[in-house]
Amino acid sequence: MSETNRTEAFSDGVLAIAITLLVLDLRVPAKDALEGSLAAALAGKWPAYAAYVTSFLIIGIIWVNHHGVFELVSKVDRVALFLNLLLLMTVVAIPFTTALMSEYLLAGGRDARTAALVYSAVMLAMSFAFAALYTHVARHPAQLAEGVDPIAVRRSILRFSAVGILLYVATLVVALFSAPLCLVAHFLIALYYCFQQIRPGQRRAAREVGEA
Amino acid sequence: MSETNRTEAFSDGVLAIAITLLVLDLRVPAKDALEGSLAAALAGKWPAYAAYVTSFLIIGIIWVNHHGVFELVSKVDRVALFLNLLLLMTVVAIPFTTALMSEYLLAGGRDARTAALVYSAVMLAMSFAFAALYTHVARHPAQLAEGVDPIAVRRSILRFSAVGILLYVATLVVALFSAPLCLVAHFLIALYYCFQQIRPGQRRAAREVGEA
Amino acid sequence: MSETNRTEAFSDGVLAIAITLLVLDLRVPAKDALEGSLAAALAGKWPAYAAYVTSFLIIGIIWVNHHGVFELVSKVDRVALFLNLLLLMTVVAIPFTTALMSEYLLAGGRDARTAALVYSAVMLAMSFAFAALYTHVARHPAQLAEGVDPIAVRRSILRFSAVGILLYVATLVVALFSAPLCLVAHFLIALYYCFQQIRPGQRRAAREVGEA
Amino acid sequence: MSETNRTEAFSDGVLAIAITLLVLDLRVPAKDALEGSLAAALAGKWPAYAAYVTSFLIIGIIWVNHHGVFELVSKVDRVALFLNLLLLMTVVAIPFTTALMSEYLLAGGRDARTAALVYSAVMLAMSFAFAALYTHVARHPAQLAEGVDPIAVRRSILRFSAVGILLYVATLVVALFSAPLCLVAHFLIALYYCFQQIRPGQRRAAREVGEA
Repeated sequence: MSETNRTEAFSDGVLAIAITLLVLDLRVPAKDALEGSLAAALAGKWPAYAAYVTSFLIIGIIWVNHHGVFELVSKVDRVALFLNLLLLMTVVAIPFTTALMSEYLLAGGRDARTAALVYSAVMLAMSFAFAALYTHVARHPAQLAEGVDPIAVRRSILRFSAVGILLYVATLVVALFSAPLCLVAHFLIALYYCFQQIRPGQRRAAREVGEA
Repeated sequence: MSETNRTEAFSDGVLAIAITLLVLDLRVPAKDALEGSLAAALAGKWPAYAAYVTSFLIIGIIWVNHHGVFELVSKVDRVALFLNLLLLMTVVAIPFTTALMSEYLLAGGRDARTAALVYSAVMLAMSFAFAALYTHVARHPAQLAEGVDPIAVRRSILRFSAVGILLYVATLVVALFSAPLCLVAHFLIALYYCFQQIRPGQRRAAREVGEA
Repeated sequence: MSETNRTEAFSDGVLAIAITLLVLDLRVPAKDALEGSLAAALAGKWPAYAAYVTSFLIIGIIWVNHHGVFELVSKVDRVALFLNLLLLMTVVAIPFTTALMSEYLLAGGRDARTAALVYSAVMLAMSFAFAALYTHVARHPAQLAEGVDPIAVRRSILRFSAVGILLYVATLVVALFSAPLCLVAHFLIALYYCFQQIRPGQRRAAREVGEA
Repeated sequence: MSETNRTEAFSDGVLAIAITLLVLDLRVPAKDALEGSLAAALAGKWPAYAAYVTSFLIIGIIWVNHHGVFELVSKVDRVALFLNLLLLMTVVAIPFTTALMSEYLLAGGRDARTAALVYSAVMLAMSFAFAALYTHVARHPAQLAEGVDPIAVRRSILRFSAVGILLYVATLVVALFSAPLCLVAHFLIALYYCFQQIRPGQRRAAREVGEA
């Protein structure tokens, strides 16, 4: 068992890089290959901006919730380390699925469907990994921080695990019908999470030491 | 409400990556496609270097001021987390707008204007997000760090919010006339911020614990 | 001699970036160049996904073990700093060898063999650098953290150094026969390390201060 | 004046990213464009590996020395923040100059000379920025950490500033004659710094608080 400091620092690093790499998918139209005005070329790339904003919000919220979960715990065991690694593996794939989504959003037919399914599937895998991590730490009271109520945490497992998974399963269904609608669904889920507080029993979990 | 440690660490990460990704826009001329000397090819890319230096300085100053704001607060609520995320979303877009500016700086006409407008618009969005974040924390004295004077902070809201926004609105106007002049304006604003201290009432805000 | 804080922070940063850059090798098939369905094009890229998962796991485990080693020490001298730098130099090369492996995994013949040999050789160099770092700190009891048993650490040198090196030498042999089999071997080694605890005498090594 | 925590964290982030981005210059030869064997194609890219190793070592040493300087100080003023930013601006350019060097190392004639001159000039700018930062903090005893001897620090200014600058001026001269020799010179300078201790009066500078 080790302190959570470096796990948080490493996760913060990975999340910060993954969220920033999203910008690499915003490509500048080459001057020589430009047909028509730059304004028109940029406007035609709206799927890239929509995908950028949505994925940025999603990774941002993953960070907020990751932060929330690690405020509840003061120690992590080896299983938690690897579940965390699994979670990060799905998050790091998001810049790729975002680029895929923005390239094929308006392609229509089976290819748009494929892109939307891959995007949603990676999000679903992410929410499974997050649920596994949360369930693991919630079931090990010895790892919880002082002042955190183990019963409240345990009760929140189902809610925490189920909501995300169900919502992302729903986006898989939406993906079958329309890629743009699927992206809108992901954006709405992200907005929902902005307003929804999922950190239980944390009132007294304030920690004394800077663990950045 | 949570400690500001991880918010600062995550923001530092994102700002550090965004500022470093600027280098990806400095492209090496391919040896096989070179016409004339390498020195001439590199010299012809001066817009890329000018845009690099300007954007580097701007993100650097955003970091200095972000640092300044978070020295005033000791806790962040959920709204502050999301306003911070919004701010980061605009900063992460800067490597893209920088590449756009350097590609079209000398294109002249409507395309140079479009590039300059997009560059300035993202900076304006950034200053709005920053103003919103600062106004939010300044209006919640409970979130301020010990020894920070809430009245001085509150008084500084207008100055902090207004100056940046007005200056960036002005660059939008300059962008309509000349892209190179617009880049110069952004560089001058950045220089101004180097000498202008915008952190109020901080004399006693020194914190005891490493919160990196 | 200096505290390990910044060494850990810098290493965490480099490891976090190297692990995240792996995603850059997952390339979106360009819409215009697509022959057949997107699903088929993505499916055809399975070597890239296999290499991504394997290398992600490997860098993740390097981080876990790096974390473990630095929990044993409280100070680092200049030699340790440079051995650590050498280790990071090999890790940073992994996104390159991963891309090489995924491009040539199915090429067959000498080119697939070359790719697999390069991939395994960099891993071997990494495990040599790690063994050198571990041996150095294990032999300098003054650098160990309070409560860490120097004799237990010293005894573990051989095991720690030998296992990784032997396993990676074995992958060099496998690389001569089959690149896909070689990748499987690396994946199995990574899985082995997930379950294998290599941190000795650490029971009392808990540290008091957040060292991020 | 503010604590050095976040300045160090931000600098660590930028240095860690710059050092890791070096890998992006190690390009995988495309399978379809391959003439001859992969082994031959990789061997032909030795300038890229040589430039990678050299620049990795240089940025690594910059980090070690940056670390050393910030162990001497406990507070930074606004001037130090901006001198630090200037230093980072030159370091972030290193992946670009490295790519330039590796592309033109064997080009011969004026183009190889241009690449070597640019590489050396950026290193010189870096050593100027570092000297300015060091001179600034060394001349402000109030910013030094407890237990650091201001006189010893002040005495070391010249040595610290002069050595790097003179060595890099010398590489500019070498660059005029031979690009490969110039790269060797940079590698030797980096090796020299590995063995040369430039942190003065630090015996008692151990700090109590994690400053990550």
